[in-house]
Amino acid sequence: MEKESPEKAKKRKIDDDGDGDKAREESESFNGFKVKAVINENARQKYLFLHCTKNDEDAVVLLEKTPFDSSMTDQILSDNTKIRQTLQNDIYHTYSALLPENLNGVKATVICPASEKHIKKYTEQESFVIQETAELYTKVTLPYLEKHAFSTKWVYNILEKKKEADRIVFENADPDTGFILLPDMKWDGKDLNSLYLQAIVHKHGLKSVRDLNKSHLPLLNNILEEGADVINQEYGIPKSKLRIYIHYQPSYYHLHVHFNHINLESPGFDADRAHLLVDVIENIEMNDSYYQDKTLVYRVREQDELYKLYQDEGYFVDFPINTSISSNSSLTAAS
Amino acid sequence: MEKESPEKAKKRKIDDDGDGDKAREESESFNGFKVKAVINENARQKYLFLHCTKNDEDAVVLLEKTPFDSSMTDQILSDNTKIRQTLQNDIYHTYSALLPENLNGVKATVICPASEKHIKKYTEQESFVIQETAELYTKVTLPYLEKHAFSTKWVYNILEKKKEADRIVFENADPDTGFILLPDMKWDGKDLNSLYLQAIVHKHGLKSVRDLNKSHLPLLNNILEEGADVINQEYGIPKSKLRIYIHYQPSYYHLHVHFNHINLESPGFDADRAHLLVDVIENIEMNDSYYQDKTLVYRVREQDELYKLYQDEGYFVDFPINTSISSNSSLTAAS
Repeated sequence: MEKESPEKAKKRKIDDDGDGDKAREESESFNGFKVKAVINENARQKYLFLHCTKNDEDAVVLLEKTPFDSSMTDQILSDNTKIRQTLQNDIYHTYSALLPENLNGVKATVICPASEKHIKKYTEQESFVIQETAELYTKVTLPYLEKHAFSTKWVYNILEKKKEADRIVFENADPDTGFILLPDMKWDGKDLNSLYLQAIVHKHGLKSVRDLNKSHLPLLNNILEEGADVINQEYGIPKSKLRIYIHYQPSYYHLHVHFNHINLESPGFDADRAHLLVDVIENIEMNDSYYQDKTLVYRVREQDELYKLYQDEGYFVDFPINTSISSNSSLTAAS
Repeated sequence: MEKESPEKAKKRKIDDDGDGDKAREESESFNGFKVKAVINENARQKYLFLHCTKNDEDAVVLLEKTPFDSSMTDQILSDNTKIRQTLQNDIYHTYSALLPENLNGVKATVICPASEKHIKKYTEQESFVIQETAELYTKVTLPYLEKHAFSTKWVYNILEKKKEADRIVFENADPDTGFILLPDMKWDGKDLNSLYLQAIVHKHGLKSVRDLNKSHLPLLNNILEEGADVINQEYGIPKSKLRIYIHYQPSYYHLHVHFNHINLESPGFDADRAHLLVDVIENIEMNDSYYQDKTLVYRVREQDELYKLYQDEGYFVDFPINTSISSNSSLTAAS
């Protein structure tokens, strides 16, 4: 399915842990850690990633505030929570509050010693919008895909039931119009509000939405209809609660479709990456070569090879991409 | 611009505050508050909204963890932060950490006494996906728009420069192909990573993307090109850093276009609401009546009148919308 996320990979590694007890005796503070740089932060999600050193070794420190525990509301509003009113007007009051320590933890993850690669992985990367015309696809993107001929052996292992066969929720076995439906790695398989499945097509050679035309409508309609029906039967989630979409660029180049519960907050549902399956079907019905002709907009990050290839192509030349944001941060709206 | 958000309205009210000092002497705990219900919570954004009572009056209590202050990293990693190792494997260590109180506050907002409307406003609403065909638009959505004839007087006030004239960043004054560009209310006008402007068209009577055809291409191209150019000149943000899109459904029914910095995390950029302006232009070039013919997918909430109208129309009849999620929460992937 999706490439394993850093969190997931880390969790797996940690779950394999054998010598936890010994470890727990270690340091009880961040004594010795020196901050070299803030490499990422997010005010909405309340996290902060730091590049540190400890005893001349590099370390990555990931800090994230914990969510509220909604089963503890009585304690949260108890006398142990201290509040200081900051403003008041009519019925509106704001406070700065201090919760009891046990209700207000922070989750910290330390990678030490950290390699260059670890630091890069957690460092915020600059993003860029690419408007990929049909010409640019042929000239830049397609040669990149062909040159790398990304291995989809692990996908074939799933389709041939050599791997993950016990996870299959549904299969239409037709080699041309069939698919396998199974839970995405990111889903715990339990919380229906974050339901996440993927349909992987049996047919080989469909790299992405760019390859789709009228001949694939039976396949796409099967996925839309059978996928939604099965999810309704298996999980009781009706179609009016589902987001069904294809990524462009996808994370792997064998056609697959994402099924999410509408309540799942997923950055993968951004309008510059997610193409709703109903739109894909209708656009192809309207115009057989829609996805060969259409300019497709997507976001790349500075470490992505596609970004570098577009840069080499001169795609960003017209734009002053060296304009530093911070050097302009005093600018305000013209008034 | 966008309808004023609850936070904004509240902030304005609070800023008008005259008797803050008196207020500050009041309670120093949530003593007397009783929790009736958790009305909303979000683990990713770390907030928790409660419906409470105090002295037989209803109250809404909004709690949100504060972001890390990245200028305080030395203090965050000081000896005053206590950490307890929870797991360790190889180079990966996880800790449960307790920060010094002053670095780990919670922002609390209390509305007391709270009306039914306040409680509703902060209560999580159920969402539904609507696939609006051309027929459903004519039968359900359009009559709703015409019946209400939503007042856009405040928009005309901006276009006629009776209001907010000092906020205008750029104007193309042509009555058919011109527009006014100004900062969105949600933007502070300073942080370029959250840059948010709106282009409002001079032409009256364009309710939404549904009304657009080839005759509007000069208008749309002006917005795309002049808007991006002006933002580059004024703020130093190149086109490759901008998201330029139209909402469907929009928050008000006079055509307008959103300009965001790519780094802004905005739920308004979901694929079931945001239509990229470059896509709109290209789709119309391909097919004059694309936005009259096309099924458009969007999300409604249970309090939205459109949801109720589609429900009355029988739109959700085929779906078992009464299936309670919690009653199915023990279901896991078939194995």
